[in-house]
Amino acid sequence: MNDQVSKDTAAHASPPIAGDASPVTDEEIFRGHEGGKLSVAATRPISQPRDLSIAYTPGVAKVSRAIAEDASLAERYTWADRLVVVVSDGTAVLGLGDIGASASLPVMEGKSVLFKTFAGLDSIPLVLDTTDVDEIVETLVRLRPSFGAVNLEDISAPRCFELEAKVKEALDCPVMHDDQHGTAIVALAALRGANLVLDKAMADQRVVISGAGAAGVACARILQAAGIGDVVVLDSKGIIHEGRDHLNPIKEELAGTTNSGGLRGGLADALKGSDIFLGLSGSTIDETLLGTMAKDPIVFALSNPDPEVHPAVAARYAPVVATGRSDFPNQINNVLAFPGVFRGALDAGARAITENMKIAAADAIVAVATDDLATDRIVPSPLDPRVAPEVAAAVAKAAAQDGVTA
Amino acid sequence: MNDQVSKDTAAHASPPIAGDASPVTDEEIFRGHEGGKLSVAATRPISQPRDLSIAYTPGVAKVSRAIAEDASLAERYTWADRLVVVVSDGTAVLGLGDIGASASLPVMEGKSVLFKTFAGLDSIPLVLDTTDVDEIVETLVRLRPSFGAVNLEDISAPRCFELEAKVKEALDCPVMHDDQHGTAIVALAALRGANLVLDKAMADQRVVISGAGAAGVACARILQAAGIGDVVVLDSKGIIHEGRDHLNPIKEELAGTTNSGGLRGGLADALKGSDIFLGLSGSTIDETLLGTMAKDPIVFALSNPDPEVHPAVAARYAPVVATGRSDFPNQINNVLAFPGVFRGALDAGARAITENMKIAAADAIVAVATDDLATDRIVPSPLDPRVAPEVAAAVAKAAAQDGVTA
Repeated sequence: MNDQVSKDTAAHASPPIAGDASPVTDEEIFRGHEGGKLSVAATRPISQPRDLSIAYTPGVAKVSRAIAEDASLAERYTWADRLVVVVSDGTAVLGLGDIGASASLPVMEGKSVLFKTFAGLDSIPLVLDTTDVDEIVETLVRLRPSFGAVNLEDISAPRCFELEAKVKEALDCPVMHDDQHGTAIVALAALRGANLVLDKAMADQRVVISGAGAAGVACARILQAAGIGDVVVLDSKGIIHEGRDHLNPIKEELAGTTNSGGLRGGLADALKGSDIFLGLSGSTIDETLLGTMAKDPIVFALSNPDPEVHPAVAARYAPVVATGRSDFPNQINNVLAFPGVFRGALDAGARAITENMKIAAADAIVAVATDDLATDRIVPSPLDPRVAPEVAAAVAKAAAQDGVTA
Repeated sequence: MNDQVSKDTAAHASPPIAGDASPVTDEEIFRGHEGGKLSVAATRPISQPRDLSIAYTPGVAKVSRAIAEDASLAERYTWADRLVVVVSDGTAVLGLGDIGASASLPVMEGKSVLFKTFAGLDSIPLVLDTTDVDEIVETLVRLRPSFGAVNLEDISAPRCFELEAKVKEALDCPVMHDDQHGTAIVALAALRGANLVLDKAMADQRVVISGAGAAGVACARILQAAGIGDVVVLDSKGIIHEGRDHLNPIKEELAGTTNSGGLRGGLADALKGSDIFLGLSGSTIDETLLGTMAKDPIVFALSNPDPEVHPAVAARYAPVVATGRSDFPNQINNVLAFPGVFRGALDAGARAITENMKIAAADAIVAVATDDLATDRIVPSPLDPRVAPEVAAAVAKAAAQDGVTA
């Protein structure tokens, strides 16, 4: 099971990119990573002795003493409360799997670059040479005074569920496993966009999610929270239903809350008459199954680098098709969500990221797309500069409504 | 015992600064720390879809896969191998003592600013909500793939000795507790400068170190390694000598290697006939003791904010006087050492910081000062831009000579 399929990743043959038709070459890629992609800068220059006396000794002692006397001043006089740590153990990196912490670092640096670019947030990658859930939690607890929020990234399922739950429990700050919730937020936004284009109502629909990894589970949960009619989830053994043997606790929970029609069997059984296919499995599907879906279905084939079904083929059956790739229309890319979600949570002084904050983020993404919605424009471009500020504002508002702000 | 006295710290009344005679105001200080002093920047902008495909997905997968196949490529394609983590548990912050991790963060941010300003090094503060030595070591071991070097900072003695030894043992990268060795390097440089001015030979001299905390112990060691005639160290109970009761292991070791004359008693006994007074104790001394020293003695009264003896008073007895303060001549400031030391170690790919590398750093600082040495200019200005590159080059060369490079 590939639970990282919702990102545009690991393409062996890099696709041509909009805006510059030539393929990205390996030489370009490696040159773009030379020396790493991040640097640390001082917010104010040190050029005079006076600068040194203010930023360092003796001046800094007054600031440290003030924080020692009133801990709340750390928010104002340090960078910690606006710093996101991007944390990975390298166990589920893009489509590459368990390649280890060091090899995951270019991805985490890239994430920090996107936090800065789209939301103006400072962030640092912390990659860990342990895959023990409790050790990762313990490490973050020890480092707590250093940061303001935690973006968990590329951590394998089902460990990622336990890890996220424990980190959220242990820390009084925004925590989000982006492979779960970033994907879920953007998928929800895209489904809303698709339904708006098709003038359909989500409350009546059945969505079939192929894949019960990090993204599949999170998508099931957010779609339920957003009021979709029914959700059916499949893992490699078929439809998850009550009474199925050998389910792990996460799937056991899904069995109890999803599949209200009590479906059994495989993908063919699930898809028949369904409205939406959400592919997060890393496998391919028989295109003829799409012909058994309800009229005018929606197909999100999000596996990378190879979608479950080629979008041109899917288009024969479905008026709206989305993928995770940048070289086809309707790219479902987490970057539409995570910068604004963390920015909004930090701006609001939120102590957690709630379900309502995630749904608010999805709604804000849809709102940006609304003006020029079309079957091939159900979400904004990943580079649309309007998205992150709108998402941040909506998330901050939802945080206040949920009462999780300081 | 104050083991942080070698820095210009915690001045209750901030002194006037060279270049701008007006005192630094509290308002200026707090404004200078508003929002924190650091930010993270992308080394290359993301403005086109092509940039995103190179820096993030799908391009980054190629870089991650390459590192997974050849771990040595992490050095070339991530920032880790040029990143210094500034690590503190907040137990001995400046002259303020054990004020905790969060309150120490402004100091650590300042340190990162100085790394960038003087040596072009990226660095991030990691402040820890634990004071357990083994937990701190364990945390750094887990984070090892994230960074290239460790600057330990403001950690109380004698824990700092054990911690530094264990971190050096556990990690194959440059590690230095700056309160120990940064101070020792600059003190050695300043003593060499003072002796050059006075045309004296260190091999014949006796130095009396008042204070057996982090800085005192490290100064004793580097001066011995640099070939000074004799070192006598005092703690709050007097001269450390063989056979003294209740010595901790660090002082026990000092008792065996220092005090070749077998002196007993207090500061008066130690100073009589000695050549150099090195004050690192946070206490004050009776000025008349300086009159008992050898002819033309050297007095370094490095306690902050109040030197052991006022430099104007000390000048009645000694032709060369130094302090830790920026408002008197001959400021002994760690910033002359640590940026260049880490830069040189990282440039050389060093797996450790050796005694020879530290001595080379001191020699390089002296070399920069040589051209305009005077009794009131025994070290360069902390802002002298020539220092860090010279120190880095000397340290890198010494690393290669010591065979600690990759």
